[in-house]
Amino acid sequence: MRQSHLFTKTRKSAPKDEVAKNAQLLIRGGFIHKEMAGVYSYLPLGVRVLSKIENIIREEMNAIGGQEVRMATLHPSENWKKTGGWDNVDVLFKIQSRTEKEYALGQSEEEIVTPIAQEYAASYKDLPFAIYQIGQKYRDELRAKSGIMRGREFGMKDMYSFHESQADFDRFYETVKQAYFRVYQRCGLDAKVTEASGGSFSEKLSYEFMVLTDAGEDDIVYCDCCTHCANVEVSKVAEGETCPKCGKSTLKKARAAEVGNVFDLGTKYPKSFGFTYKDKDGNDQTPIMGCYGIGTTRLMGTAVEVLADEKGIVWPETIAPFDVHLVAITGGNAELQAEADKLYEQFKENDIDVLYDDRDIRAGEKFADAELIGIPTRLVISEKTMQEGGVEVAERKSGSTTFVSESGIIEHLQK
Amino acid sequence: MRQSHLFTKTRKSAPKDEVAKNAQLLIRGGFIHKEMAGVYSYLPLGVRVLSKIENIIREEMNAIGGQEVRMATLHPSENWKKTGGWDNVDVLFKIQSRTEKEYALGQSEEEIVTPIAQEYAASYKDLPFAIYQIGQKYRDELRAKSGIMRGREFGMKDMYSFHESQADFDRFYETVKQAYFRVYQRCGLDAKVTEASGGSFSEKLSYEFMVLTDAGEDDIVYCDCCTHCANVEVSKVAEGETCPKCGKSTLKKARAAEVGNVFDLGTKYPKSFGFTYKDKDGNDQTPIMGCYGIGTTRLMGTAVEVLADEKGIVWPETIAPFDVHLVAITGGNAELQAEADKLYEQFKENDIDVLYDDRDIRAGEKFADAELIGIPTRLVISEKTMQEGGVEVAERKSGSTTFVSESGIIEHLQK
Repeated sequence: MRQSHLFTKTRKSAPKDEVAKNAQLLIRGGFIHKEMAGVYSYLPLGVRVLSKIENIIREEMNAIGGQEVRMATLHPSENWKKTGGWDNVDVLFKIQSRTEKEYALGQSEEEIVTPIAQEYAASYKDLPFAIYQIGQKYRDELRAKSGIMRGREFGMKDMYSFHESQADFDRFYETVKQAYFRVYQRCGLDAKVTEASGGSFSEKLSYEFMVLTDAGEDDIVYCDCCTHCANVEVSKVAEGETCPKCGKSTLKKARAAEVGNVFDLGTKYPKSFGFTYKDKDGNDQTPIMGCYGIGTTRLMGTAVEVLADEKGIVWPETIAPFDVHLVAITGGNAELQAEADKLYEQFKENDIDVLYDDRDIRAGEKFADAELIGIPTRLVISEKTMQEGGVEVAERKSGSTTFVSESGIIEHLQK
Repeated sequence: MRQSHLFTKTRKSAPKDEVAKNAQLLIRGGFIHKEMAGVYSYLPLGVRVLSKIENIIREEMNAIGGQEVRMATLHPSENWKKTGGWDNVDVLFKIQSRTEKEYALGQSEEEIVTPIAQEYAASYKDLPFAIYQIGQKYRDELRAKSGIMRGREFGMKDMYSFHESQADFDRFYETVKQAYFRVYQRCGLDAKVTEASGGSFSEKLSYEFMVLTDAGEDDIVYCDCCTHCANVEVSKVAEGETCPKCGKSTLKKARAAEVGNVFDLGTKYPKSFGFTYKDKDGNDQTPIMGCYGIGTTRLMGTAVEVLADEKGIVWPETIAPFDVHLVAITGGNAELQAEADKLYEQFKENDIDVLYDDRDIRAGEKFADAELIGIPTRLVISEKTMQEGGVEVAERKSGSTTFVSESGIIEHLQK
């Protein structure tokens, strides 16, 4: 894409009321637009990042047998009254319609997915299965100061599974856990899983997936020598004490962002809807249900918080808006401009995902924009680079540069 | 995908309160689940169809330079108060939050896109541009009896363009019109474009894209010999009168569904937000704005209404949930089952998008399901077809059948 065609521009500063680093950088880079506290629109660069995150999650959920749906977000109040959520979920947005009906806006989808599952699961032969979707959620948060890490409207992958037994849920949880770790790893993040309390969703245990960052809203204690990790709210062992799992090290404490969670919902929701299935002996049984969330927009915000440096955003290759940022510094030299244009066309022909800075602005502005936007590989073509033997290739993360001849650049990028 | 893995099943009947043919068939086929009047969830088969429709639209909008965004659907009331929509748009859902703030749910996005465009378009050099998104819309409809063709929550592609002059808008409208015709044609539908009144969006002309179907909510008059087409509400020439455009034929009247629209919004929304740009002479000017909608879920419903037959849905190849429905009728013959499994694996290896009916149910039930679900090509493998020389290939639309040897089937399908 030619940058001159992109309708967004970078900004010198974010809105004054924006205190979160993730949103400040994303607004300045032209990835998002703030509508109000906790509500953002995603601009072309932001849509590219979010779509890549969603596709990674989609691939991993499909790989473990998840079936993709898109559930309504406008919910009949009746469903929420059946589960008690209408009166008990304080973040639930409620709507009064012209037709005197009351609706809820989806803040989670147990109230919709349970009757859907009930419709199709009459027998033990129909179990287990897992249904997921990727879409918007709405929560009436009292405070929303964490940028896209806590929204009143936000993107989420939510999956729900239905099982014959606790053992089968436990087995599937292990499968999901591995898929979740693959998601975070593919998004360039190092996640830990904790055991924590179930919150309002469940009386049973829940699992939280955590990424260390000062922008998080949780405190965890964890062990460097093994996988032990716990939310300090529920941990029985404090910072500095010996790891209760491996005994080899003492626990460290850190701030972390929750980038995923799993709730063992037991039979709560199926019971609310009278959802039973026939077991092998023809008896009615209530299925065990699990819920698995990953905040897609929060994951994007976490990647910014964790990976950015003082110059701007640093995207991992897997979720960057483009793979390559081609910056032409022509100084009005028409021949050089033609060379840059030719390179851009060659990249497109070779399916190299490139943002081409063809704008007629100062070199310093182009470099600053490239650093703010954070595309992993920057290519510069200028009179100076041509004297050095071709195109300058700079790695955004390390800052290391090298020169590659024009004729060799495509092969270099495809390595 | 193995049909035994699909968590949905076909149903003998739709809910009693469902009167629309599109929703009846889609519910029976397991494409959608009704949550309440005008609100449906999309199940795995439905998500596949809708995603294909969305991708066709996305390709066509990108091809004419549209830039994809995802705007917030939870809107600050301030934006709607600025345009007057807060008090004048009767289908607007309003929400009172815990924090005493009022929000609107997006029923269209002029109130969000205009300030976004304003942020980035300061000069005539920044114009024109077009921004689009594909997502959910919410309308507080008094009646919702048309299945997925009129929803309280529904999917829509909405694009907005900003121009220096009326002439530039007119030029872009012609470009969009051709893109819209390509969308409908690729979705297997034959559309006409009318000129009609602007409704609540605009005081200026609007254009409506219409597909003939008794399930529509509009009446149009049109000419068989040329492209003349008008909504009867605004047509100056009645049914049976001579075509005012070509004069060669008399106008026919028909029921039609609106599958797209374009509004020439003039300067209304930019004026509401004080959105001006500097022209070549440094003077402040207000941009001309256009709005372009295609209801994605309505398009899906229209395809069902127009193309279905008495046996069920008939999907065009471009938007079918799968390309091929492989139906194994093994009667417990393990050897035949192994042949069918082998064929399925070969299809997957060759990227043939196949639904494999491997279920242990009666042949008649499998055939009825295949006809209801409406995948374009059905392959049957049974003892009978093997005697006939291989696999029976049946075209869902025409019902025509032929036999192809197992070894030649992949080549046959890839033609």
